[in-house]
This record gives sequence, structure tokens and C-alpha cells, in this order.
Amino acid sequence: MEGVDHLAFERNKAQFDVNDMKIVWAGSRQEFELSDRISRLVASDPVFQKDNRTALDRKELFKNTLRKAAHAWKRVIELRLNEQEASKLRSFVDQPAFTDLHWGMFVPAIKGQGTDEQQAKWLPLANNMQIIGCYAQTELGHGSNVQGLETTATFDPKTDEFVIHSPTLTSSKWWPGGLGKISTHAIVYARLITDGQDHGVHGFIVQLRSLDDHLPLPGITVGDIGMKFGNAAYNSMDNGVLSFDHVRIPRNQMLMRVSQVTREGKFVHSGVPRQLIYGTMVYVRQAIVADASIALSRAVCIATRYSAVRRQFGSQKGGPETQVIDYKTQQARLFPLLASAYAFRFVSEWLKWLYTDVTQKLQANDFSTLPEAHACTAGLKSLTTSATADGIEECRKLCGGHGYLCSSGLPELFAVYVPACTYEGDNTVLLLQVARYLIKTISQLGSGNKPTGTTAYLARVEQLMQYQSDVKRAEDWLKPNVVIEAFEARAAGMSVAVAQNLSKFTDPEEGFQELSADLVEAAAAHCQLIVVSKFIEKLQQDIPGNGVKQQLEVLCGVYALFLLHNHLGDFLSTGCITQKQGSLANEQLRSLYSQVRPNAIALVDAFNYTDHLLGSVLGRYDGNVYPKLYEEAWKDPLNDSVVPDGFKEHVQPILRQQLRNARL
Amino acid sequence: MEGVDHLAFERNKAQFDVNDMKIVWAGSRQEFELSDRISRLVASDPVFQKDNRTALDRKELFKNTLRKAAHAWKRVIELRLNEQEASKLRSFVDQPAFTDLHWGMFVPAIKGQGTDEQQAKWLPLANNMQIIGCYAQTELGHGSNVQGLETTATFDPKTDEFVIHSPTLTSSKWWPGGLGKISTHAIVYARLITDGQDHGVHGFIVQLRSLDDHLPLPGITVGDIGMKFGNAAYNSMDNGVLSFDHVRIPRNQMLMRVSQVTREGKFVHSGVPRQLIYGTMVYVRQAIVADASIALSRAVCIATRYSAVRRQFGSQKGGPETQVIDYKTQQARLFPLLASAYAFRFVSEWLKWLYTDVTQKLQANDFSTLPEAHACTAGLKSLTTSATADGIEECRKLCGGHGYLCSSGLPELFAVYVPACTYEGDNTVLLLQVARYLIKTISQLGSGNKPTGTTAYLARVEQLMQYQSDVKRAEDWLKPNVVIEAFEARAAGMSVAVAQNLSKFTDPEEGFQELSADLVEAAAAHCQLIVVSKFIEKLQQDIPGNGVKQQLEVLCGVYALFLLHNHLGDFLSTGCITQKQGSLANEQLRSLYSQVRPNAIALVDAFNYTDHLLGSVLGRYDGNVYPKLYEEAWKDPLNDSVVPDGFKEHVQPILRQQLRNARL
Ligand SMILES: Cc1cc2nc3c(=O)[nH]c(=O)nc-3n(C[C@H](O)[C@H](O)[C@H](O)COP(=O)(O)OP(=O)(O)OC[C@H]3O[C@@H](n4cnc5c(N)ncnc54)[C@H](O)[C@@H]3O)c2cc1C
Ligand SMILES: Cc1cc2nc3c(=O)[nH]c(=O)nc-3n(C[C@H](O)[C@H](O)[C@H](O)COP(=O)(O)OP(=O)(O)OC[C@H]3O[C@@H](n4cnc5c(N)ncnc54)[C@H](O)[C@@H]3O)c2cc1C
Repeated sequence: MEGVDHLAFERNKAQFDVNDMKIVWAGSRQEFELSDRISRLVASDPVFQKDNRTALDRKELFKNTLRKAAHAWKRVIELRLNEQEASKLRSFVDQPAFTDLHWGMFVPAIKGQGTDEQQAKWLPLANNMQIIGCYAQTELGHGSNVQGLETTATFDPKTDEFVIHSPTLTSSKWWPGGLGKISTHAIVYARLITDGQDHGVHGFIVQLRSLDDHLPLPGITVGDIGMKFGNAAYNSMDNGVLSFDHVRIPRNQMLMRVSQVTREGKFVHSGVPRQLIYGTMVYVRQAIVADASIALSRAVCIATRYSAVRRQFGSQKGGPETQVIDYKTQQARLFPLLASAYAFRFVSEWLKWLYTDVTQKLQANDFSTLPEAHACTAGLKSLTTSATADGIEECRKLCGGHGYLCSSGLPELFAVYVPACTYEGDNTVLLLQVARYLIKTISQLGSGNKPTGTTAYLARVEQLMQYQSDVKRAEDWLKPNVVIEAFEARAAGMSVAVAQNLSKFTDPEEGFQELSADLVEAAAAHCQLIVVSKFIEKLQQDIPGNGVKQQLEVLCGVYALFLLHNHLGDFLSTGCITQKQGSLANEQLRSLYSQVRPNAIALVDAFNYTDHLLGSVLGRYDGNVYPKLYEEAWKDPLNDSVVPDGFKEHVQPILRQQLRNARL
Repeated sequence: MEGVDHLAFERNKAQFDVNDMKIVWAGSRQEFELSDRISRLVASDPVFQKDNRTALDRKELFKNTLRKAAHAWKRVIELRLNEQEASKLRSFVDQPAFTDLHWGMFVPAIKGQGTDEQQAKWLPLANNMQIIGCYAQTELGHGSNVQGLETTATFDPKTDEFVIHSPTLTSSKWWPGGLGKISTHAIVYARLITDGQDHGVHGFIVQLRSLDDHLPLPGITVGDIGMKFGNAAYNSMDNGVLSFDHVRIPRNQMLMRVSQVTREGKFVHSGVPRQLIYGTMVYVRQAIVADASIALSRAVCIATRYSAVRRQFGSQKGGPETQVIDYKTQQARLFPLLASAYAFRFVSEWLKWLYTDVTQKLQANDFSTLPEAHACTAGLKSLTTSATADGIEECRKLCGGHGYLCSSGLPELFAVYVPACTYEGDNTVLLLQVARYLIKTISQLGSGNKPTGTTAYLARVEQLMQYQSDVKRAEDWLKPNVVIEAFEARAAGMSVAVAQNLSKFTDPEEGFQELSADLVEAAAAHCQLIVVSKFIEKLQQDIPGNGVKQQLEVLCGVYALFLLHNHLGDFLSTGCITQKQGSLANEQLRSLYSQVRPNAIALVDAFNYTDHLLGSVLGRYDGNVYPKLYEEAWKDPLNDSVVPDGFKEHVQPILRQQLRNARL
């Protein structure tokens, strides 16, 4: 059967050019070629194979990860890959490793928060990996509340040093990836204390381990925090615990781009605006949104292909059974996720643009758009990661029993993905930040402060409150402006409603606490509007390729109308649509599903994922699922022997009724 | 710190008697005492400790499971435990094992489907565990569609035997628990063929392995299907693959209670009605609903206690920070799950009653209530398992980063629980069955067929379609009849709407397929109504205990109004409530959350779970979270050595810039 494409008949049904769609998905031909080249490079390298990793124990898995990380770095050097290529390569290796934090957090923190001098000293070392760093912010007792961190960095003017110390058990650093076993250095966040005064939390470069023998330096206690969710998944990472017993570092290891401590121990602000740091946050979060679209599309690719292979029920007169992808319930669960993957992809593209825009403005000392950009990225991080985590699990369920096997690839994808809902800002805490921004924007409407960017629609709040959709037939829901207006009216209506309720409280903060669940819902509605609008904006561009744009229009409709259906209560409550219009939307949604159906396989082929990256028997490109599932099974260590370890001691005595005498 | 109760101040706040609530939760004093006694027995037994299991590799884990299973059986014999006690003991051991299928599926199948003679032969062997059995239905190619199974059992009149055979790869049995490595016997479902004629799927008792050396018998290929989702979790179970190459069994090993094959090879029905088998299905599914309430309550117990321990933000003037349980967003996510746990508990109690009722009627040859009972248990299985799976993951997220650690207990609870959404009927397939039943009921309304039991409200469909709630103030939503009527009107409205749409199709089956997503939503609405009504019915009984009933009333309100808020679109679409009434419900819900708050810890204490069962550092009874988290971390195998395995080969060469020469 090798070489046969069991899904060829599906691929032939597609009504668009899948190669053109690949370019759209990748963002550009150049991006496509880069990803294509690097993903094949990784897939064909025996060191990067990952089929057995869910059966490895912690130590073996960790060693295997070190091996891959070293090999990746070796390839980067040998092939003289540039930064972008190297980062792609790491991501296609698809196994969390200490290098993620070194390149993703340690180096950027030095770039963002270090002075020119500090950068000149530390970046070459880090860029050559002569030192390996991690990002040690979270403590046992504090994560979301960064301002509550307890670790102290007390300036000792006598020796011109900071004394880094962990005053309590809860001040132990806890979670930083790469910290547990590997990092030689860390950016440690600690309360700066000079002359008895607390200046809040700042970053410090601290060496943790000897560069000779890798042993922890005096005063440093460091280790791994133990097993995490799932097979393999994040267990390849040495998330760590760290505490300090009066560890001394030179004064110039405080990251001093924004604030400084002088030789005399005076705390001073440099001229550089604090806001610069928020620019980095926008960057990190846009990367998380891009990752969401990748993780979700991987899951969707697996579930879609398998749904076309899997047949169950409905055989007529001995013919083949129905492909489960033909069941409308399967479509109604799967196709919105397919549409979401595309939606998140396009919104992440836009966020990348936003980051560039904000950075340019910051460089010109224009901070005006930063709060809006910040709220918007916080909200989109929250929306996309939550939807992706839930979506991966839904894809797993869509594969029935077989989705529960590690060989489906879905359990590990879920387990490795879910922490994205928590790290870089807990999703609920982030939505509360968005809500605060929305309420502030609304409260300032009267004062002539014109809302900008993604909140611009709030300038039309009066009209939007009166808005009533004029949809008469199901097809009316295909018109972009009809959709946008309904989403704007709903989001504005929800924000205004909660703002009005807030105004009933004498203490605004108490009101904010009391109504926070409603605030979160209003914030979510706002974020959904952003994703829908950016998808629609994308479609207003010129998109080349046979049938490509039409497919994207269908997906955009699916995304929007699925949200509308799922949150119908909001739309009806705010009065922007009627019950009848709601049910017309649902009717239109059903018809869009039928339009997606023949294109479904090609739409996931457009992600251009290798079988290596998918790591899923169910999601194989060739659809040759059953023989491969069967083959995989026999590789389990339990199948090494016919009679399992422990049988003689623990089962035979039962069968022979000799349990009383047995030593267990 | 040992012995200090960090949550005492929370326990003191409770406005009800927690000991009385324990009895209500358990179902009776006797049930409480039984669970209490057995859970302590298990918790105090060193063999049953489970703290290190997520770090074991597959083989070690499996061996550890065999040891526990044997020890459990030994204790059962030594202590002369009865069936109920033995089953409790197994469930408190809390590690899936081959014995689950032996006792839970193999023995009941013989009881339900075997003739008296067969029972007399096989049950004593099984009851003494002289043989160990599993339940082999699902195949690689067929799960949901049992009628599509491919394994054949062909009668050979020459030898008076059946020949069991696997004609294709996809006919391999796949998934049965206990099959892979341990079972000596299986109930195998296969297509019965006599004289060239196919009589559909029947059960057969087949010996798989030699009772001497445990090797597979000739013609039998059997093994484990490999790693499944999560750390430990179901990996302690040997779900297996099995194929037959013309394996012969005596004729009397077909389970012949309902249909028989005579010596001459004639296929005949015994007098026993087929429906008896559905009785078993009702039984199994009520047990699943009961398990849902247990799994969800475990997760809720962990998240609630930790939310009271965890403090984040809001410190005023150096005072302690806010307990995260005081944030309204946390309450709005957590308390509905707490209420759901209670709701599922009570509906499972009612299902137990229903099973007895149905059984008695079946014995009197009254099959009239069976279809309704069948639809209702199918629906409740689907509703409760889906809500529980999602609820466990929500509880994990509610614990922030620390919920991602295995030591929180939540990752494993999730991974071990989720297959309940798939086995014993895929949840979507089950809801479609409920929908079929609802549509049939509605279509027969005219013909004088009076709907009964949980569908009785459909008799009032005309009134319900006109129903408009008369809620005027938020408190009106506390009235049971107001809630019930709204839920009835919504469920009836949805069923009728989709029935009307169905009638537009000339081919009803085509209509059913086309509208199946709407049908599933109508079925879900019907099932939610059942849970809400059974909760309310429970409250109409006498419930002793100081403040107990009041607490349950609050939880019942939370459950119902949370559903209403989440499905507001349904309620508004069917016109049974107005926008204003919807927002009053939300207001009332908020106020109920405040009433739950002081009682939250006591409400989870009422589950009476031991720290052993919870297996969670975050959910410890004493709330002493941080020191124990810290302690747990150091037990990870990675912390066995300061410098990890693989460092010298794979990391040092990087640091020393000697990668080129390094052998990886
Ligand atoms: C896999 C993984 C990798 C990580 N890597 C790193 C790393 O490299 N470096 C590092 O420094 N950290 C790291 N972290 C830590 C991570 O950043 C934190 O876990 C995260 O910030 C969440 O904080 P928390 O755990 O304190 O959650 P908590 O704040 O304790 O959240 C618990 C609950 O309280 C709620 N809550 C908290 N505050 C509020 C509020 N004000 N209002 C309403 N609700 C509230 C939350 O919504 C949540 O439901 C990692 C974590 C994980 C899981
Ligand atoms: C942990 C675990 C333990 C198990 N233990 C046993 C055991 O001991 N013995 C045993 O015999 N089996 C066992 N099973 C198998 C289990 O019973 C099946 O997996 C289950 O019945 C689901 O069937 P499936 O896997 O074929 O799903 P599928 O039917 O293939 O489902 C795939 C998708 O198709 C959809 N679908 C299927 N049919 C329809 C339809 N008609 N209309 C609309 N949508 C449809 C489903 O909703 C799902 O989304 C076990 C499974 C697991 C995961």
C-alpha cells in the first residue's frame, strides 16, 4: 500500500488551487519556501524523529531533548542559518527545550532592558551560547501579580554589589523554563532595595551555575519542579525552582536601560521611557497568537483527514459506510475550528504589522497608540489561546476512541499547548485588563477623546446602540458590512450596558470587582469583533490564486456566523438582531458548511505540514490510517514480552487461588 | 506546621452543618459510613500509595497496577468484603486496572446474556477470579456502529463449534481494557453465521490465553495498543488488540439467553425478550453519571480549596492579598461547577431509582417505559460526561500555573476522565438518539400517545409554545416553578422548531441528517431540563440538617441560572423570557455566588474525600500548599543528580564552543 494516496479522491474535489492557498497561509512565497525547506530538513533528520517520545521516562526524555537541542544548534552553525531560519528550525523540532527560553526570553530581555554597554557585554556570549539563560520572574507565591514578587535585590554600597535573597519559601522562583537543570544564567526579577527603600521589581542578570563543572554557585539552590501535564509535552523542559541565600552580583548586572542605581546607591530614571517595555509585550503576544493558529491548524488537519478516512454507519446495500466528515454534527464541530485557524492566522499577521507600527511610533516618542495596542494584544492572546486549547481537545474527541491514543498526536498537542492559557498572562486576568481599557474609553467619550484603532467603533456608540440589522434572507448574512455592524453593535451594547451598571456603584473599584464576570464577557465580545474585522479586511485585499479568495470568504462567514450562533444571547439581548435574523444566520451557516465540505481536505493540506510535524497516525497525508495504527501499537514497551512483568507475582496467584500465600 | 489547619477560618464561616451535608451527598448514612470506612482503609495502606505514579514508565506503572489489583483482591478476601464494599475498594484505589472490566463488564455480560446453565458454569469461575475476563466489542474499524462489526463466528455443524475469525485488518478487536496482557477470557462480539446466513452481532465467551503459562492460544494474536493520553491515567490499563485466525470454541459458548443456535445449526429466538439487554445499558449509564459527579467534585474540591489558599493582588497597606476565590470571575467559573457536581449527584441518585423501576417493569413484561428510560440515560450520560470533562480542565485552569503540575492531581484526573465522553456511546451519537426519541414523541402527540416520564412536559407543548415568563424582579428567579417552566418552554420550543423544519423535507431521514446540529442542541436542552427538574424535586423532599437544604437551594439556583445565562440565546429565541428577564436572572446569579462564597470550603468538605483520593497538593484538606509543593518537586527523577544525564555530551560542548567535534 506504500505510496497510495487514500485521500486522492478528496483532494480531487477541491475547488481552488491548494498551492496558491499555501502561500496565503504562509504569508508570502518567501515565508512559504522558508517553512517548507526547514520543515523538510527537520523531518528527514533521524536525530529529530519523535515517534517514541511518549514512552520515554522523564530522564530519558530530558536527555533526548538535550540531544535534539544540541543537534539543532549544530545544524544552525553548519548550515549558517540566519536568526529566522534558526528559529523555524527549533519550532519544527517541536519539543520544548531550554533553548526556547534562552532565545525567546533571555536574549530579548537583555536587548529590551539592557543598556548599550550591557548589551555589548552579554549579547555576544548569549548569541554564541557560551552562556545559557532563562527568565526567572514567577515565584511559588506570585505569578499574575508581578508587583507582589518577594525576592529582594539589596544594594550594598560598601562592595558596590546587589545581594539577591529569597526571604521566604514562597519567594522561591518557580516555573522558569530551562532553569531546573541547564541554565548558567538567569534574568531574575527582584524588588530593588537601596538604602532601606523599596523601588519595586527590576531585572538582574545572575549567574547560577559554574561554567566549569555546572554546579550551582554558593548560596544558590536550584532544581526541577517535577512532572507536568501529559506524555512528553512540557516534560522535556526543566521548569525550575530557585532560591537565593544572600547571593552577591556586581552592580552593573541590574538591567539598567530604564532605571539605574548609581555607585552611591541612588535610584534614578534614565531618560528612556518605561513604555518601551510594553513594546516587547506586544511582540511576545503577537508571537503567541501566531502559535495559536499553528497549534489549532495542526489539530484541525489531523481531525479533518481522519474524519474523511473514518467511516461509520449508513452503509447502503453493502456499499461503503458514510465518511464521518459527512455528518452535519461533525461538520458543525470541525469546520468552525478550521475557520478559526485561518482567522487566527490572519489576525496574527495583522498583529505583526501592529507591532512594527507601534515600534516605529515609540522610536519617534509617540506613545499614543500603545495603550490600545496593549489592550488589543492582551485580548487577542486570551481569545486565541483559549479557543485553541478547547479546539484541540474538540478535535481529539472528533476522532472518537482513536483520538485518545498518543499515536494520534492529539493528546500531546493538547498537553503541550494548554499552558499558553496561563503563561504570559492568565487569560481571565488579561480580559479584565481589556475590560478596564474599554470602560475607560467609554467614560472618556464625552470628553472628546476619540477612540482609535480597534476601539474606533466606540465613537459611534450612540448609533450602534440604536442599530437594528436589516437582514431579511439568509444570504444577507454573507455581506461583510452586515456582519461587522452586528458584531460592533453587540460589542458596544455589552460594554455600554456594563458601564451603565458600573455607574450605579459609588466606589468604581467595588463596581468593577462586582461586575467583573460581565466585564469579561464584554471584553470577549470586543476581541471577537477584532478577529472578525481583520478577517474581513484581509478579504478586501487582492488575493491571487484560483478560487482561493472564495474559499476564504466561506471560512470567514463560518467563523463569524458560528460565533454569532454560539453567542446568540448577546446579540438578541443587545437588540441588534431579531430572533428571526438569528435563525437565518444559522441557516446560512449550515449552507456554508456544505460549501466547505468538498474543500476540507485541501484546506488543511494548505497548511503544508509534514507528517513529522503532525506526529499523528490519524492525520497522515496519505490517509493510510489503519495499517499504521496497528503497526504503532506493537512498539509499546508492554509488548516487549508476551507475558508481562509482574504477571507471575501478582496475577498468577490470583488465578491459582494462592493469593493468601503470595508476597505482594 | 504539621497539624495546622490553614483553612480553619474558612470552615468556621460555613452556615450549615457539614456532617449532615456529607450524608446527603453520600445518599444515606449507611452509604456515607461505607465510603468513609473503605476510603480510609485504602488511604492508610502503603501498597495503595500513588504519589509517584506519574513518574513511572509504562512497564513500571503496569507492574505497579498489577500489584495494587492483587493486593486489593487479597484485602477483599481477608476482610470478607461484600460485592458493594469490594467495588468501593477498587474505586478508591483509583487506578484503572484489568479488574475494572472483569467486574464491570465481563461478569455482568454473562449475568445479563448467559443462560442459567452458562451462568452456573462461568460465574463461579469469574467470581473467584479463576478466570479473568474482558469485553471485546470495538474493532479497529468499528466502534459507534456496533452492527458493522466484522469479526465472524461461523457455526460448523460437523464439530458443533463456532469458528471465530478476523477476516480483515479492521476487524481486529481494538480498545478492550484488560485484553492486552492479562485477560484469560473475553466476551467477543462477532457476526453469527449459520449455514451461510448472517444473523447479526452476538456475544461469545472465548478463551484467549492458556491457564498454564498465560501464552495466547493457537490462532490468537493479542497485544497492547500503546500509550494513551496523560501521565499514568489509563496507561495502567492494558487496552488491547486481538485477532483470530479460525479459532474454534464449543457451541455452548455463545451467550444464548436471547437467541440460540441449535445442534443442527438453526438460529432460534428463546422466549426471553431482547429488551432485557437495554436494561443493562440503563444500569451502566447510571453508573457513569454517578462517576461524573465524583470526578467533577474531586476537581472542584481541589480548585476550591486552592482558590481559598491562593492570594494574588489587592494587598492593602501591607495586609494580606486577596484570596483568588474572592474574585467574581473566579466565582463565576468555579461555583457553577460546584453546583453541577451536586446536580449530577442527585440526578444519578434518581437514575438509580429509574433503573430499579425499569427492571421491575421488565420482569413483569412491561416494556412501555423502556424507550424513554433509554433515551433519558443516554442523554444524561452525554450531558454529564461532557460537562465533567470540560469542568475538570476549567478547575485546572482556575489553579493558574500550579494546576499544570502533576502534583496538583488535575492533569491526571482530566486524562483519566475524558474517555468517558467517548466510551459507552460517543456523546454526539447519544444526543442524536435522544433527538430521534424527542422528534418521535412530538410526531405522535396528535395520535393520543401520551408522553411519559421525562418527556411528559411535551404533552403541554401548545401551552409551552405560548409561555411567557412573568418574572419581574431578580428574586422571582428563585421560585422553582418559574425556573422549571422556563426550561420546559425552551426545550419544547427548540424541539418543536426543529420538528417543523424537518417536516419541510420530503425524505425525513435526509432532513434528520441535514438538521442534526440543531437536533443535538434541542436534545441538550431537554437533558438540561431533566437535571434541573431532578434537582428541584430533590429539594421538595425532606432534607434534615442545620442549614443543609438552604445551601442546596442556593446551588440549585446557581446551576439553573448559570445554564440559562450560558444558553440565553435559546431562551430568548423561543420567546419564553425577555431580554430584561434574562438580565434579572444574571443579577440573581451574581447574588447567589455571594451566598455560596462563605460556604464554599464546607461544601467541598462535604464530599468527604481523603487526601489520598484527591492526590493533590493544591487540594490538601489542611491547605498547607506551598511547603508540600516544594517538597514534591525534589522527588522528580531529574533531581537525582545535580548535573543531569546528557549534560556532558550535549550541553557542555555547546558552552565550550566545541560542538563541531562533538558526537551527538
Ligand atoms: C508551562 C509553564 C511555563 C512557564 N514558564 C515560565 C518562565 O519561563 N518564567 C517565568 O517567570 N514564569 C513562567 N511560568 C509561570 C507563569 O507565567 C504563571 O503561571 C502565570 O503568570 C500565571 O500566574 P499564576 O500561576 O500565579 O496564576 P494565579 O494568578 O495564581 O491564578 C490563579 C487563578 O486566580 C485568578 N486570578 C488571579 N488574579 C486575579 C485577579 N486580579 N482577578 C481575577 N482573577 C484573578 C486567575 O484567573 C486564575 O484563575 C510558566 C508557567 C507554565 C505553566
Ligand atoms: C479508554 C477507552 C476504553 C475503552 N474500553 C473498551 C472496552 O473495554 N471494550 C470495548 O469493546 N471498547 C472499548 N472502547 C472503545 C469505545 O467503546 C469506542 O471508542 C466508542 O464506542 C466510540 O467509537 P469510535 O471510537 O468508533 O468512534 P467513531 O464512531 O469513529 O467516532 C468518530 C467521530 O464520528 C462521529 N460519528 C460517528 N457516528 C456518527 C453518526 N452516526 N452521526 C454523527 N456523527 C457520528 C462521532 O461523533 C465522532 O465525532 C474503549 C475506548 C476508550 C477510549
